[in-house]
Amino acid sequence: MKSTLPKAVVNLTHELGRLPGIGPKTAQRLAIHLLRQPERALITLVKTLSNLHASVKICTQCFNLAENDLCSICRDEMRDESLLCVVEDPLDVDAIERTGSYNGRYHVLGGVLSPIEGVLPDQLTISELVRRVQGSNIRELIIALDHSMEAEATSRLITSELKNIPIPITRLARGLPTGGDIEFADALTLSAALEGRKKL
Amino acid sequence: MKSTLPKAVVNLTHELGRLPGIGPKTAQRLAIHLLRQPERALITLVKTLSNLHASVKICTQCFNLAENDLCSICRDEMRDESLLCVVEDPLDVDAIERTGSYNGRYHVLGGVLSPIEGVLPDQLTISELVRRVQGSNIRELIIALDHSMEAEATSRLITSELKNIPIPITRLARGLPTGGDIEFADALTLSAALEGRKKL
Repeated sequence: MKSTLPKAVVNLTHELGRLPGIGPKTAQRLAIHLLRQPERALITLVKTLSNLHASVKICTQCFNLAENDLCSICRDEMRDESLLCVVEDPLDVDAIERTGSYNGRYHVLGGVLSPIEGVLPDQLTISELVRRVQGSNIRELIIALDHSMEAEATSRLITSELKNIPIPITRLARGLPTGGDIEFADALTLSAALEGRKKL
Repeated sequence: MKSTLPKAVVNLTHELGRLPGIGPKTAQRLAIHLLRQPERALITLVKTLSNLHASVKICTQCFNLAENDLCSICRDEMRDESLLCVVEDPLDVDAIERTGSYNGRYHVLGGVLSPIEGVLPDQLTISELVRRVQGSNIRELIIALDHSMEAEATSRLITSELKNIPIPITRLARGLPTGGDIEFADALTLSAALEGRKKL
């Protein structure tokens, strides 16, 4: 059945439906919503989208998103050079920065190993990490990856690549989230919480 | 806490977060997804958005979305001129067309009465509907509105506006949806299904 909607709406629905987490129904509702917006609201969106690639770079030191050659964190001379936190992507940097509890630098891997999805070690910035750590004055490397099989494998690869460099490597604590209910915790979380128990 | 993400990403997150049903987290994920797309994918999206207003018109006869002065249904001379179906918006036209069970014309109201949201009778195309029905050879007017208080009020207003014109006015049947379970039906649906029961 051919749609009775104008081609421009159908095309936009199609384009929006390709975004992650947006199904065909949501895409259609969004297209109609955008159509109802005044033209200048749409122009703002179009400009923001058009600007995106031109104004965003990758930091040459840590591979975070940046506006210049170095990202805002690598340029900040007040940060502790001796702490390095390894994360999967720029959103993780943002999440850790929002805690306000970390003052070191970052290294963005650009993903985690996933042979099924075609992510192999040379697509991640692991060799750049090794080069960066070598001969530096880093006193601790914090691996801040998700709690998943892929992240576990990535974490092991990093550890093995760095085995000849004598710096302590740590990873984020695992356990019950704040406000988490033991009753509703999954078995893996609960066993991690048990294993990592602390003396009071 | 200032975001560590580049301004272009923050701006795009902000713009996307204004869309209905897209929260700040989803908006951020979408912005990062778009950033990772090759530039030409983004150009397609930008073009589709820029085209939207210029290429979509409102049908001068039925107020459906159109590419010309008349929408594809009003231009189609094979449609039954004597049946008129009143709907809330163009997505409803599309939904009814997809059933393939209707061959008449439509009239798009552009909404339903909702004093709370500021939708008053003169913002709907009700007077245009009355003018269209007057002196026409329409033999049945089908009111195809949702099953809600607002739709009910709109439907009553239409009926009262048309009371001097002798055409039968019908509305869509109410009852259990296909595959619907009596056990899980809400009380209103079930009482509508009882009320509208048919002899076997």
